[in-house]
Amino acid sequence: MHTTTQSRHATGQTAASPPVTHILARFACTADEGLMPAAVRHEALRALLNWAGCAIGASTHPTIERALAAVAPFAGARQATVLGRGDELDILNVALLNGMASHTFDFDDTHLRTVIHPAGPVASAIMALAEYQPTPGPALVDAFVIGVEVECRIGNAVYPSHYDVGWHITGTTGVFGAAAAAGRLLRLDEQQMTYALGIAATTASGLREMFGSMCKPLHPGWAAKNGLTAALLAQQGFTSAAQGIEGRRGFANVLATERNYAEITDRLGDTWELAENTYKPFACGIVIHPVIDGVIQLRNEQGLRAADIASIAVDVHPLVLELTGKTRPQVGLEGKFSVYHSAAVALIDGDAGEAQYSDARVRDPQVVALRDKVKASVDRDMPEDAARILVTLSDGRRLEKHIEHAIGSLAKPMTDADLERKFSGLVVPHKGEALADRLIERFWTLEEMPDVGDLPAMTVPRERTR
Amino acid sequence: MHTTTQSRHATGQTAASPPVTHILARFACTADEGLMPAAVRHEALRALLNWAGCAIGASTHPTIERALAAVAPFAGARQATVLGRGDELDILNVALLNGMASHTFDFDDTHLRTVIHPAGPVASAIMALAEYQPTPGPALVDAFVIGVEVECRIGNAVYPSHYDVGWHITGTTGVFGAAAAAGRLLRLDEQQMTYALGIAATTASGLREMFGSMCKPLHPGWAAKNGLTAALLAQQGFTSAAQGIEGRRGFANVLATERNYAEITDRLGDTWELAENTYKPFACGIVIHPVIDGVIQLRNEQGLRAADIASIAVDVHPLVLELTGKTRPQVGLEGKFSVYHSAAVALIDGDAGEAQYSDARVRDPQVVALRDKVKASVDRDMPEDAARILVTLSDGRRLEKHIEHAIGSLAKPMTDADLERKFSGLVVPHKGEALADRLIERFWTLEEMPDVGDLPAMTVPRERTR
Repeated sequence: MHTTTQSRHATGQTAASPPVTHILARFACTADEGLMPAAVRHEALRALLNWAGCAIGASTHPTIERALAAVAPFAGARQATVLGRGDELDILNVALLNGMASHTFDFDDTHLRTVIHPAGPVASAIMALAEYQPTPGPALVDAFVIGVEVECRIGNAVYPSHYDVGWHITGTTGVFGAAAAAGRLLRLDEQQMTYALGIAATTASGLREMFGSMCKPLHPGWAAKNGLTAALLAQQGFTSAAQGIEGRRGFANVLATERNYAEITDRLGDTWELAENTYKPFACGIVIHPVIDGVIQLRNEQGLRAADIASIAVDVHPLVLELTGKTRPQVGLEGKFSVYHSAAVALIDGDAGEAQYSDARVRDPQVVALRDKVKASVDRDMPEDAARILVTLSDGRRLEKHIEHAIGSLAKPMTDADLERKFSGLVVPHKGEALADRLIERFWTLEEMPDVGDLPAMTVPRERTR
Repeated sequence: MHTTTQSRHATGQTAASPPVTHILARFACTADEGLMPAAVRHEALRALLNWAGCAIGASTHPTIERALAAVAPFAGARQATVLGRGDELDILNVALLNGMASHTFDFDDTHLRTVIHPAGPVASAIMALAEYQPTPGPALVDAFVIGVEVECRIGNAVYPSHYDVGWHITGTTGVFGAAAAAGRLLRLDEQQMTYALGIAATTASGLREMFGSMCKPLHPGWAAKNGLTAALLAQQGFTSAAQGIEGRRGFANVLATERNYAEITDRLGDTWELAENTYKPFACGIVIHPVIDGVIQLRNEQGLRAADIASIAVDVHPLVLELTGKTRPQVGLEGKFSVYHSAAVALIDGDAGEAQYSDARVRDPQVVALRDKVKASVDRDMPEDAARILVTLSDGRRLEKHIEHAIGSLAKPMTDADLERKFSGLVVPHKGEALADRLIERFWTLEEMPDVGDLPAMTVPRERTR
């Protein structure tokens, strides 16, 4: 087992590093789709559905409007589709915009061990490429699974030091995933794939300083575009260093203070990081999810209405109040950082999607009134994905719910039906129910499509002229 | 004086940091061109001439051919011109390609203190922009001087730790210079300029691991394109963090282990880093330049010819043999790492430009014969920009030359005439003498041009249809 913990300032100390860049390149070129378990291939469909829902839902957000306005005058031919909008641009700019949109609501998937949001960079690159060159469903799924594997294994190798230094790991590792997946669809050979990963290494970027600004969602879009660019450059014989990841001045030495290459090489091709992927059921910080889950369960089991409630008391992990302790949110974004608002909308609406975090919903008098009846207490023994909820009714009755693992955690994943509901919640307000249903059907049967490139245009309810 | 040397892992330790991102943004927006000394404005013309010569000279190199082949199918409208080629693409891709070409021969300018090659990222971004929106000569010069100032001051603040960690500083600081210069031409306000620098911070990239591959010249092109993109995004109100450089997880804390913000703030607007810029007279590693300079001087003073020479003995700084001690180079690139080949061509041709480092020239029997008569000895007391040359002639005469400061050093800068000669050496083989002369004249009178955007098309000897 190769374990390297050399200091970033050790000089020339890489003789012992396995050639992980080439190992990943060979894997990306040659991984046999027959080895991917059916469950992993199905997980790809779940991740793609979730990715598309998030991107369509955010497609008219100012982040996307402004980015589109900035790049459109310089964009290329109408080769691919901005999901849910129908704007057609070159595949590189579409990869950028779809990657951004998929992360704009912070509602995308999460590889919990590294906090990478894996789908955005990878899916955005290859779905744009699929609009440019005919791509059967199974080939897209292969490429997606491989891209996520490359991205998350590199993440595993440098996490947590890489993240602690200040890198937004979704951007910095996403570019490798996008390069590997796009390179797979472009049928790069091992040498070209090694170059593609090297180009990815030298274009990896994204600072955590940007959290809270439009640059946060920029990062996965940037990774998608740059990873796709890396694969296209490599296809033309554009060269990079051979050890882009493990070289003395390569990615893992320059952007992290510790690294463990065994995370890249061990059982590569036998285990699949996509199996560790999770999806957020609610459009807010994951720490509030146990509370929301419990309130919704009580509401649905007992038929609760706001008028019945005297108080809602929740016992939570300390991080909940640290991160989401805002008692009087004024705008939608602040609502996402309020366990009080979240519990109130969960009881009134039975959901906590984007709709529950609009400015209007945060200011709604009924929501505000119930919000003020929510009390939160820290329980230092409470696990992060657990919570205890005690609802006291006006008639004095007390109802309790103990959530051991919130919905969306690895221990209690969202079901396919949950993911469909989430997708509809994001898509129906923009596109209506009929289109949302049609798209859901399409994603579940994606492996049967002879050309997945037809899919993005289906997110727009009109005929495309191409 | 603010001096910060906190470890990269210090947490939250930025209360004492001056708001350098905003300080630089205000400077870039408001710097009064009237304050720039005439010598600095003239230095801008010298740097631009040198930049264009390098880019035209490398315009048909495989690095550019392959990159162009990769991006062309996805590029936008014919808005700007690849120097010397005439290919017309959108301004972002042209910024990329011209920035790459300007660094492909490693023959571009050098800010010696930081080893930044300043012109490539900045000039490539704003010259492309000037083809898109009318830009008078003086406005382009202002923007160029400001971009170089921002780029080199950020470099001064993080050098050498940033470079030692493994970052290719031309790429990582170049993106700030390109953003500031392009933002200036786009007339961004202070808030937008702060966003542009923040976007630059979160897209800064480029690893020294890539040296020796096509990714090295990719870096300044990448910086040019990304800096221009940052300015265009900011113009549309796309937001970034306010402290992209000095924030706890900003550029200077994440990409360097030490930083000194006084290098950014001290006498900003009173001193000009462009005044510290240097140009390479010879197309090889700077450590051989004193030897070449001395051999050429002896040759020209004494009318030496290869047939006259019995031996050439040179005493050099230790780095010369360490970096360029290749006794029997086989191809052009190896010739650049051979003090022996360099001395031989300097005597035979009286020059050491790209033409002297072709595969053919390295294999030429006359060159090989003279090369074998060159002996190099290390003198540990010899300064880096000095050398002693002793030529012994067949008739027994001995001729000596002691170079104290090689041509191209800060102490003995290339004259305008030297730069013209260098430009011609790069451009004439591709474009002929008449066009080279016309372009030289254009660059010297660039401040008189009502629209500099006409200049790039003039590098191609044909009428453009736009």
